[in-house]
Amino acid sequence: MRWLVGVDVGGTQIKMGVVSARGTVLAHRVLPTRLYATPAALVEGLGSAIEELRELHGLPRASWQGVGVGLPGLVDQSRGVVHQLVNLPGRWRGIPFGSWLARRLRCRCVIDNDANMVAVGEWRAGAGRGTAHGVYLTLGTGVGGGIVSHGRLVRGATGSAGEAGHMVIAPGGPRCACGARGCLEAYVSTAAILRQARAAMRRGSAILRACATEAGGLTPAVVSDAAARGDAAARRIWRDLGERLGVAVANLVNLLNPERVVIGGGVSNAWPWFAPSLRAEVRRQAFELPARTVRIVKGQLGERAGILGAAYVLMDTGDP
Amino acid sequence: MRWLVGVDVGGTQIKMGVVSARGTVLAHRVLPTRLYATPAALVEGLGSAIEELRELHGLPRASWQGVGVGLPGLVDQSRGVVHQLVNLPGRWRGIPFGSWLARRLRCRCVIDNDANMVAVGEWRAGAGRGTAHGVYLTLGTGVGGGIVSHGRLVRGATGSAGEAGHMVIAPGGPRCACGARGCLEAYVSTAAILRQARAAMRRGSAILRACATEAGGLTPAVVSDAAARGDAAARRIWRDLGERLGVAVANLVNLLNPERVVIGGGVSNAWPWFAPSLRAEVRRQAFELPARTVRIVKGQLGERAGILGAAYVLMDTGDP
Repeated sequence: MRWLVGVDVGGTQIKMGVVSARGTVLAHRVLPTRLYATPAALVEGLGSAIEELRELHGLPRASWQGVGVGLPGLVDQSRGVVHQLVNLPGRWRGIPFGSWLARRLRCRCVIDNDANMVAVGEWRAGAGRGTAHGVYLTLGTGVGGGIVSHGRLVRGATGSAGEAGHMVIAPGGPRCACGARGCLEAYVSTAAILRQARAAMRRGSAILRACATEAGGLTPAVVSDAAARGDAAARRIWRDLGERLGVAVANLVNLLNPERVVIGGGVSNAWPWFAPSLRAEVRRQAFELPARTVRIVKGQLGERAGILGAAYVLMDTGDP
Repeated sequence: MRWLVGVDVGGTQIKMGVVSARGTVLAHRVLPTRLYATPAALVEGLGSAIEELRELHGLPRASWQGVGVGLPGLVDQSRGVVHQLVNLPGRWRGIPFGSWLARRLRCRCVIDNDANMVAVGEWRAGAGRGTAHGVYLTLGTGVGGGIVSHGRLVRGATGSAGEAGHMVIAPGGPRCACGARGCLEAYVSTAAILRQARAAMRRGSAILRACATEAGGLTPAVVSDAAARGDAAARRIWRDLGERLGVAVANLVNLLNPERVVIGGGVSNAWPWFAPSLRAEVRRQAFELPARTVRIVKGQLGERAGILGAAYVLMDTGDP
């Protein structure tokens, strides 16, 4: 049996999985990102962890097809180089991470932007299966995106295409982590949700406050719980989020005429609370034909999307 | 010598040209759009005009490769059907214009959105030549767009991709012709420019008023003249236009990571007046790497872009 390793490097956790050539996750492991202070330390850490996984599960080296890694930054997939990556420790500019990891593990390695990997995972094995035109958004700490057009991931001239999170939807709006103002991410990221939730608690949202106390802290899941228990302010936070997301999705629907828009990432767990206003805004802002053509759905693969996507990107890249 | 016909149907004028298989415009003709009150009348009108062109220039039927037509609406190129088209007289919904014209002329016909045709023209023979990733915007009565990704025109699921003119850049902004609010088109179309120019004249812009009187009316060219003659309000109109366009272009640069953004259409003749603020806004809003990668330039083909693009789309489609 041929096997691959898919890795999804996030700001907090590194998720990795052994994947069969048919796309089944055979084994899974999670590491804390903070263990690795530099790109070189991360290469060594991933190398050891993958070798341990291989030995633990008795996977033969001869049938190993390689490693795919999603990284949360601007990645030139064709050259295996990280251009910019601000959410991991260490200096990442111009790091040939792909060839470093290939040398460490003596196997084929491909790297790509983490949101592209999630997009490929959902497209090949999840909510976008069977489509040729799709937009994939990942809502979490940041907002990532991946675009599939005519059955191909859109990478652009230097591999950085898909940055839908930094679409400016309101010039002069709130400051985004990227430095610009009014980006989608400044409205729908985890931090934006929690900022609005704290403001709601200050204004006296008793249910939201009780939920946060019970849970031992404020998270997007707490804001969903409060919405489920009837908190009006929590419901408004999700409704507003759906509307803001809808402006961006309507733009993407007009621009790219996708069959499917897939919303994944941790924030998408609040789907029932923001999907109605999201869909209503797209119907209001987009042209009728593409708005009627597109299905806007929640991602299906959850945390496995990035691992599977990395494995599929590796398979698709083929032998050198 | 093999030859083709390219047709660019606009709201005011229909431009058509005989094009050699090497992409040279051999003969050219312009018709007023208002002559044709229905889709059937337009088919008959194009049919007669093309036959006249053929006879006039003694072009042999045997070496005729067909006709490509750009239409200002939502077109499903793969089926040759017009879905929606609001700027021409008659009822256009669901009209199989491609097969009607093919039957009338007994030749191969392809149809597509006019902005897609302009994009293909500039990509293959103009300002985008030699690139694999480009965004093409046409600024005029409306604002059209075409996207090239990985050396292929992005059409989307039902052929309507590329509608960059209706990217919402300011929710709740001015009402657009499409019904939505705050679209790019509502800020940078001819009508938007003239609205601002009239307001400036009411506020007392003497130079602008003198230019309009000399020219016998207000047009975007008059606003450029006034800018050239030092009118501060006219210069501000172009600077603001460049900034608004820059918000949309920055979004497209982040999303698609193009090598080239090409700005064409009548309004692009004011290029020196809005290019600096356009480029500055892209540098401010887009990520550094894709902003450094892209070249933002004026279209090179002017009115020939749509004719040549239609001919190239026909050539690329190949024999059935």
